[in-house]
Amino acid sequence: MEAEQVVRDFIAAWNRSDFDAAYAMMADDIIWHNIPMEPAVGIDACKALMANFPPTEAIDFETHHIMANGNIVMTERTDRFLIAGRWRNIRLMGIFEVNPDGKIGKWRDYFDLLEFQREFA
Amino acid sequence: MEAEQVVRDFIAAWNRSDFDAAYAMMADDIIWHNIPMEPAVGIDACKALMANFPPTEAIDFETHHIMANGNIVMTERTDRFLIAGRWRNIRLMGIFEVNPDGKIGKWRDYFDLLEFQREFA
Repeated sequence: MEAEQVVRDFIAAWNRSDFDAAYAMMADDIIWHNIPMEPAVGIDACKALMANFPPTEAIDFETHHIMANGNIVMTERTDRFLIAGRWRNIRLMGIFEVNPDGKIGKWRDYFDLLEFQREFA
Repeated sequence: MEAEQVVRDFIAAWNRSDFDAAYAMMADDIIWHNIPMEPAVGIDACKALMANFPPTEAIDFETHHIMANGNIVMTERTDRFLIAGRWRNIRLMGIFEVNPDGKIGKWRDYFDLLEFQREFA
């Protein structure tokens, strides 16, 4: 599958709040790096990171731009999380590296930590 | 000229500290938005923004990834600024929209404001 389609499917899984599907698309040794934070290394660390996240009632990753070159996919997005009845919106750009087996091997999102903290307060 | 080459040339101008060349590549009505800050609208606002920037002894925008789709160009970079004898490094992703005349019409960089403030302190 084309790398861009892998990432589109990955984002679609998040937007269904289908975390099992999202985890199934991650490589076991994925490095997920929210750049202002420490990277999560490995699928178990990613699940632990999500376990620390407040419960979401809905998720909507809005993709403004997406493009690919080989196995690298870049996005500009607004990631929206419905938490405690209010949408929290994070403006960001993200880059993904898709492995030959179609799994996401690296995921780096660039955003402002203060915006994240403000929205999730 | 291809949009990706325009952005490569733009980054090269910064890396020569050739600000006149960089300004010449910006559209008069450019919107330059360092996402955690207010956008600079128009070339004069961009020059005013730079005038508030501390004097740089050298600049090195390291491009980790760059790709284009039509007139949209996306980058993952580490922008380095030599100021008062010390390199200040900002991890970021940036997106550019190149106008039909080859000028940069929009430029948005996504980074962590705390990292920026820490590095420039």
